[in-house]
Amino acid sequence: MNNDLILLGHGSGGRLSHQLLEELIIPIVSGTAASGQNDAALLDSVPGRLAYTTDSFVVDPIFFPGGTIGSLAVHGTVNDLAMMGAKPLWLSVGLIIEEGFSKADLKTILSDMRQAADAAGVRIVTGDTKVVPRGKADKIFITTSGIGSIEHELPIHGANAHPGDAVIISGTIGDHGIAVMANREGLEVGPDIISDSAALNDLASVIISAVGGSLHVLRDPTRGGVATTIKEIAQQSGVAITLLEEALPVKPAVRGVCSILGLDPLFVANEGKLLAFVAREAAETALAAIKKHPLGINAAIIGTVEASPAGRVRMETTVGGLRAVEMLSGEQLPRIC
Amino acid sequence: MNNDLILLGHGSGGRLSHQLLEELIIPIVSGTAASGQNDAALLDSVPGRLAYTTDSFVVDPIFFPGGTIGSLAVHGTVNDLAMMGAKPLWLSVGLIIEEGFSKADLKTILSDMRQAADAAGVRIVTGDTKVVPRGKADKIFITTSGIGSIEHELPIHGANAHPGDAVIISGTIGDHGIAVMANREGLEVGPDIISDSAALNDLASVIISAVGGSLHVLRDPTRGGVATTIKEIAQQSGVAITLLEEALPVKPAVRGVCSILGLDPLFVANEGKLLAFVAREAAETALAAIKKHPLGINAAIIGTVEASPAGRVRMETTVGGLRAVEMLSGEQLPRIC
Repeated sequence: MNNDLILLGHGSGGRLSHQLLEELIIPIVSGTAASGQNDAALLDSVPGRLAYTTDSFVVDPIFFPGGTIGSLAVHGTVNDLAMMGAKPLWLSVGLIIEEGFSKADLKTILSDMRQAADAAGVRIVTGDTKVVPRGKADKIFITTSGIGSIEHELPIHGANAHPGDAVIISGTIGDHGIAVMANREGLEVGPDIISDSAALNDLASVIISAVGGSLHVLRDPTRGGVATTIKEIAQQSGVAITLLEEALPVKPAVRGVCSILGLDPLFVANEGKLLAFVAREAAETALAAIKKHPLGINAAIIGTVEASPAGRVRMETTVGGLRAVEMLSGEQLPRIC
Repeated sequence: MNNDLILLGHGSGGRLSHQLLEELIIPIVSGTAASGQNDAALLDSVPGRLAYTTDSFVVDPIFFPGGTIGSLAVHGTVNDLAMMGAKPLWLSVGLIIEEGFSKADLKTILSDMRQAADAAGVRIVTGDTKVVPRGKADKIFITTSGIGSIEHELPIHGANAHPGDAVIISGTIGDHGIAVMANREGLEVGPDIISDSAALNDLASVIISAVGGSLHVLRDPTRGGVATTIKEIAQQSGVAITLLEEALPVKPAVRGVCSILGLDPLFVANEGKLLAFVAREAAETALAAIKKHPLGINAAIIGTVEASPAGRVRMETTVGGLRAVEMLSGEQLPRIC
């Protein structure tokens, strides 16, 4: 029995489960000694409405330039709350681990979760660990859920895009997906190919403070990329959206890898970028506020909203043409998050 | 491309993901047409404290006598909330699906989730679906999380067992684990071998109504069985517990399969049973209330709490001896939930 590896017994609910929980998981994740373990966490009451979300993470590889499955699992769920204009408060974490997984890797992943949670100002308060036999899962899958509080009355959601709104992206696109793909494919790439995985709650609150009710939609363009997210919002809001190809911020290195892999950065996942739809008259104020934030220095206005036809998204290309933008079709990038 | 199977593209976040969500997942799980999909669900404010929990489900097989991975995933999370004395309100669901999984099986599982949620009075309000390539997961894994409200001030938790408390089990033990194991091993067994998977929130509230503050601990003995759960509570509360072997309700058929498989029912998982620790003077009142409930007809007082030594659990055997009871050691029953 190798003491450095996760065994089936660590998911039994018995003695080994308790040891793993008390010696490794709880001290790292919650920062306290294991005590008072119960079936559920008790939380203080929250004034106002709640936002509630969940995401499962199956990214391959689990360690990639700019992050790990652990930091990604925290950022992803924090961002889903932040995109509703909520203040993220608490996270849960469900681990599904393949028998034989390294305890050292588990420690690294949990430490990354903790660090990401601390940086975002959220607490991991409850969790569960299951172990499946070798070959029945691929290393580790993490499902996080999150609760946030909504302390304002603004209707920030995907059905709230207005004709005339400017579409702002908070920075370069495609970084996460390309970092994961390049790493998976063993491509030799430079330091510019790095995941943008980051918590967006602070940036979101900066925008809310700057323009208040002129902010209509917030959405992070993860799986399916900017194209799919923009199409979703056009459909939900019943508006048309036109994007400007030349305005899209893309790192040259990312564009290069996209060419090699035959990918369009518009469809590649981001994990630390947001799209903000802002009323025309407040767009420059919002853009200036975003650009002052460390996560927004490459922000740009990339498009505008029109009244109709509902659901249509077009791109004005650099050569002056117009092409239709649809959702990602098929599976361009499996296991990107 | 086979239209009856789940494809990698169904986890892409793109067009196929939206189709799966709109045509299959959302109509079944939420009972409404897909609309207003956002990154998180918006929930009304909740008076009082919250309970919050998560569990990952990797049970094998995914269909077993008395339930499916879907109903189990709802019951497990509902019960974790109910064991804190909370009223379960909302659930999230994270699906990790192996490429090539049958859409018909997914429908069955989701319908079971919905039915279990409706029966328990909770709503599935948010979710996520990922698909991994064939061989990278085993059919389907489900992670549910849940939020409940605590509408009383009673300190119901694992550290609250008092000397003198009676230990009540709400029914026969070992049913779930043995049903899953017998099915997995292909044993020919009768209709008595069936999972007890059920939502315990109504039963829990019946006990609270019956004896109020005389109820000190509620816990559902899942992985690791009654033995492990009782040992946990003895340690958390710093008390000793003595169990009476002859008082333990075990179905003869379950005892028979346990003998064949070399298992002790005391260590086998239950998914629809609870342990209640109740002050001596209220124990008979609690027992009577439990026995009147459909899920409690075989309830019994199976032990008592003593002041010391802290953490010791013993069993008074049918032949009059005393043996130590420890937590489940190793992995008796992998993938039981």
